Amino acid sequence: MAEREAAKGRVHLVGAGPGDPELLTLKAVRLLERADAVVHDRLVSAEILAMAPARARMIPVGKAAGFHSVPQERINEILAELAREGLEVVRLKGGDPFIFGRGSEEAAYLRARGIAVDICPGITSAQGAAAGTGVPLTHRGLASGVRYVTGHRQGSAPLDLDWQGLSDPATTLVIYMGATNIAEIAFHLMAAGRPGATPVMAVSGATTAAEQRHVSRLDRIGLEMRLSPLPSPVLFIVGDVVRLADAGGGERLTLSAAAIGAGAANRIAAALKGI
Amino acid sequence: MAEREAAKGRVHLVGAGPGDPELLTLKAVRLLERADAVVHDRLVSAEILAMAPARARMIPVGKAAGFHSVPQERINEILAELAREGLEVVRLKGGDPFIFGRGSEEAAYLRARGIAVDICPGITSAQGAAAGTGVPLTHRGLASGVRYVTGHRQGSAPLDLDWQGLSDPATTLVIYMGATNIAEIAFHLMAAGRPGATPVMAVSGATTAAEQRHVSRLDRIGLEMRLSPLPSPVLFIVGDVVRLADAGGGERLTLSAAAIGAGAANRIAAALKGI
Repeated sequence: MAEREAAKGRVHLVGAGPGDPELLTLKAVRLLERADAVVHDRLVSAEILAMAPARARMIPVGKAAGFHSVPQERINEILAELAREGLEVVRLKGGDPFIFGRGSEEAAYLRARGIAVDICPGITSAQGAAAGTGVPLTHRGLASGVRYVTGHRQGSAPLDLDWQGLSDPATTLVIYMGATNIAEIAFHLMAAGRPGATPVMAVSGATTAAEQRHVSRLDRIGLEMRLSPLPSPVLFIVGDVVRLADAGGGERLTLSAAAIGAGAANRIAAALKGI
Repeated sequence: MAEREAAKGRVHLVGAGPGDPELLTLKAVRLLERADAVVHDRLVSAEILAMAPARARMIPVGKAAGFHSVPQERINEILAELAREGLEVVRLKGGDPFIFGRGSEEAAYLRARGIAVDICPGITSAQGAAAGTGVPLTHRGLASGVRYVTGHRQGSAPLDLDWQGLSDPATTLVIYMGATNIAEIAFHLMAAGRPGATPVMAVSGATTAAEQRHVSRLDRIGLEMRLSPLPSPVLFIVGDVVRLADAGGGERLTLSAAAIGAGAANRIAAALKGI
């Protein structure tokens, strides 16, 4: 690369996808392979990090069990400092940098300081979990849309979500960062009218060798996750589409009509009619 | 490949992403490169289709302007027939096969007939449009979640969406297949309480050389799209995050506070404070 170009650093916010290295985009791989520095979440796997050249500076930031995470303000500064050194910087984040994960705050910080930044999208954990389990995020007659929310609570503040809007039975609900509060979230959803028999799937480590899943219903998931929690981070998919999950080997889960309620069972039967 | 394996066909439902061939996943490329047959939407670009081997049968189905689309039932049958011939079949769909696009119906049809099927996720048009325009789908203080809906009407039926739930100002709304009905959709959203000054971005051909975008507000987008429509398909992103859009060359769009309303402007200012 020409020296003039090298003197002009740049930050690429890159989605590392849900876990499986094969779910990186071609663009993400190209950017990684020519990176001078990689600032990465601790959840990004060694296999993905190994795609960066040996000369690249590797800087772990972000959350993982047992580590203090680097404050967001400091991450912003690190990115700016590296770019000012004239480096090609890859900021590697799990999933997609523009869906949760504060990528847009990093982009705004850098742009405000005149530093070039661009975005490379990534497969979300929700998409990875859906593909791996056979649970579609939309399906005619079962879910006409999908909604991603975060179940993370800021400090001791109450969970302030749009519960009434979230109760729409025709929308698949994907809950990120909800493991700690899933009992409370389920309670609010039921109070807003979502039936207790609504199917719920919890997925941990989607698309990796460590993937674990648990299929339940809204009125039981809170207790079950307390009794036998899955390794963090856990993603929850809520809605009738969960009924279409593979049972590992390609068989459908046999959630009975009694378990999921007659109303849901009828809607599912109608949606599957003729297939 | 061993003959015994070759005799056992398989269907891979593969996301082709939003348009840019570099936004395919490594897995999608691997599956394409070893495909015996590719059954593809007409919107998938020639550059992506060229990744399949020369020997592969290429079968266009699905919608494009000026073509009659192959009925879904016939697509299902084609996939089953090819798999029964013992072929590795790639069903290539724009975006992600499990978000709209009826991938889960194809999967259910094939599984019910004992045909092996697996899913390879893809970057959605929404993610592509977000990354390309600098508009995040979530952003602290502006959007705590994101919701994908379809604005497509079945026949002459009224648009039956969860308007009250869709009016939540803290959720970014992504509308697929909404170009025909955007005026009606905007009307319903405003009637349900979403302010007329809510920013809206229409994106056509996201992540391709033909990308076009138009930034407006909820109370104007219907008329403007009628007066100067964008080439189909058009994606709409609705919410305060649109304020963060790049103006092409990396500059922010200067939507004035007057244009977007003081309430939205204040929320945006608060969210950007300290960045």
